[in-house]
Amino acid sequence: MMPSQHDILMRETLRLAEQGYGRVSPRPLVGSLVVQQGVIVGRGFYHEPEPAHAEVWALREAGARARGATLYVNLEPCSHHGRTPPCTEAIIAAGIHRVVASIRDPNPQVNGRGFEQLRAAGIEVLTDVLAVEGVKLNEVFIVNQLEHRPFVHLKLAVSLDGKIATCTGQSQWLTGAAARLAGQNLRHRYDAIAVGMGTVLADDPQLTDRTGQYRHRPLARVVFGSARARLPLTGRLAQTARQIPTWLVTVNSAGNTADLAELEELGVRLLRVEADAQGRPHLDQSLAGLFSEGIASLLVEGGSALAGTFVDHRLVDKVTWFIAPRIIGGATSLSAIGGCGAATLNDTLDLAEVTAEPAGSDWALTGYAGQTIKQALADAHRAAAQLVLP
Amino acid sequence: MMPSQHDILMRETLRLAEQGYGRVSPRPLVGSLVVQQGVIVGRGFYHEPEPAHAEVWALREAGARARGATLYVNLEPCSHHGRTPPCTEAIIAAGIHRVVASIRDPNPQVNGRGFEQLRAAGIEVLTDVLAVEGVKLNEVFIVNQLEHRPFVHLKLAVSLDGKIATCTGQSQWLTGAAARLAGQNLRHRYDAIAVGMGTVLADDPQLTDRTGQYRHRPLARVVFGSARARLPLTGRLAQTARQIPTWLVTVNSAGNTADLAELEELGVRLLRVEADAQGRPHLDQSLAGLFSEGIASLLVEGGSALAGTFVDHRLVDKVTWFIAPRIIGGATSLSAIGGCGAATLNDTLDLAEVTAEPAGSDWALTGYAGQTIKQALADAHRAAAQLVLP
Repeated sequence: MMPSQHDILMRETLRLAEQGYGRVSPRPLVGSLVVQQGVIVGRGFYHEPEPAHAEVWALREAGARARGATLYVNLEPCSHHGRTPPCTEAIIAAGIHRVVASIRDPNPQVNGRGFEQLRAAGIEVLTDVLAVEGVKLNEVFIVNQLEHRPFVHLKLAVSLDGKIATCTGQSQWLTGAAARLAGQNLRHRYDAIAVGMGTVLADDPQLTDRTGQYRHRPLARVVFGSARARLPLTGRLAQTARQIPTWLVTVNSAGNTADLAELEELGVRLLRVEADAQGRPHLDQSLAGLFSEGIASLLVEGGSALAGTFVDHRLVDKVTWFIAPRIIGGATSLSAIGGCGAATLNDTLDLAEVTAEPAGSDWALTGYAGQTIKQALADAHRAAAQLVLP
Repeated sequence: MMPSQHDILMRETLRLAEQGYGRVSPRPLVGSLVVQQGVIVGRGFYHEPEPAHAEVWALREAGARARGATLYVNLEPCSHHGRTPPCTEAIIAAGIHRVVASIRDPNPQVNGRGFEQLRAAGIEVLTDVLAVEGVKLNEVFIVNQLEHRPFVHLKLAVSLDGKIATCTGQSQWLTGAAARLAGQNLRHRYDAIAVGMGTVLADDPQLTDRTGQYRHRPLARVVFGSARARLPLTGRLAQTARQIPTWLVTVNSAGNTADLAELEELGVRLLRVEADAQGRPHLDQSLAGLFSEGIASLLVEGGSALAGTFVDHRLVDKVTWFIAPRIIGGATSLSAIGGCGAATLNDTLDLAEVTAEPAGSDWALTGYAGQTIKQALADAHRAAAQLVLP
């Protein structure tokens, strides 16, 4: 099947929106085109710290040529007053004839009202163009709006047999340079990296975005504490906490007050939550706390115990598995996902839309695990299948 | 790069050779074409119980048109008297002008002598055409000839996190129908399936080739015994041992003589070997014994302990991993590969030529693990790269 003109232009719109990676969180990635008689006369994408929305950039560039033109945008134009006036007003004022959009805004303040306002003003509105791609591009924003918590992406480097270390504990480097670079590129798209205390003690990691690409906010580090172990005062994380936002999620308990005060003096921020049944930080509370601190997306990089906790609580939206073409084996070597695990095959955490891509000599398997994002993707597939393009 | 005419015709030759799957073991898969002025005038492939080699079938069909023609064959023509006279003599007698081959015969009785005889008779010989594909097609035969043991293919169905069962032991079915069908198609290409005693006790499997495709010898079943457990007399394997060849690999020990006699009465064949350091059947001896019984290829289907033993002993030539897009998780759920495992990342079992292909909603990752076959593939890549086609 040949892609339609709308598909081609929406793909270009999505590509523009991607320019916003690292510069929009916690807001959505939005691109926009103004097309006059088949010619692109305006382009725009949302990027902090500029408050202007993508549509406004595109309309500004188009100027008078916007009159009677088609405006492409991957996300429903806003219809409410935020930092800027509503985009719907700007579109109507510019004399746009038709709006072609990919997805609705999941934000309850909008959710269809933007389209309604445009239609009420006599503008033709076509939606659900490349809806699946539109959902994937704004997977973080969609989960944020519907779940009021950070989007959680579990990223692990494993051997073919699902191990993350040998029986003697060696884990660096399991995957090759290309996979590690891909892992860095993932970090660039996230607000924070999360690791468990075991990983901190074993590797003393930096957990930094080393892509060299611009980001409007620094990549935060989040350590999930345990009842047994303390975040080392002399480790890399604590020692760089003044320069790079560093959170310790810790349970309210009397025992460790002195230590925590020392960490705070080094600049480590504490997120105190209740303990769960196992005495570890309550996961729902932890995510809610991080979200209210502005962390919209969390890249969970392990280790086994923390990954197991997220999986057991079904608080994983997306999974990326860098698989090294080697077998570690061993009945006692560490598996990627600890925790309790599924009791029966009906209880496994099932992935949708799984893709496998080579990364050097490794393979990257990616899929969606969260109920909300899986539902959004299923809805988008249905909408896209029903779409009859004029 | 455009494929050359030789590549195209060699690909057709390989396709013909594949017709022999299930009908050649323990001999190689061979196809042959006779091409006269760009037209295929003869085709043949080796298939039991017919003794004639592929070249002979192709020459017979070509008849007088073989004079001055080019003969394509994926494996070096034999130059010795076996069940049939040497193919080199038939090729020379037919007046073939040029022979285009994929790979040398690894058999020490041939290994280049076939090509020498043809050249000595004034025939132009071009080799290494699609050499990598030629090696892959006859991976079993190559390892047989060089290692004097069965080709070992480790086939497992795992969750994304490398587990083969939930923490309560549930394992059926982890993968979907398409992956299970692909597993059956793999079985069709093998002489025997091997499982550990744990799998027999847990699943009471049939271990049969249910593809319905013709095979000239039945698929044998091989159970690797353990010191602790006995093969159940009332299980499916023992009860069908009269109809389907069923081997029990067992250690020489005094304790279980009565049981073994009962199993033999049911038709189970015993392969008695020495115990290894862990009291399990010595793996080298087991493979040598099976090879001398005519088993040229072994599909090892688990469980965890047996797969771990093969991996620990580096007696795995090829690996196929059917990965279900689901996470089981759990610190105590069973991993695919038990055993000791690698101590350091330098000791892992590394795979070459890994491919990832979808199988329904599952993924099949396949790669080569054995030193001998990896070396043969590396040599073939080098030869193919140096090849300058006329």
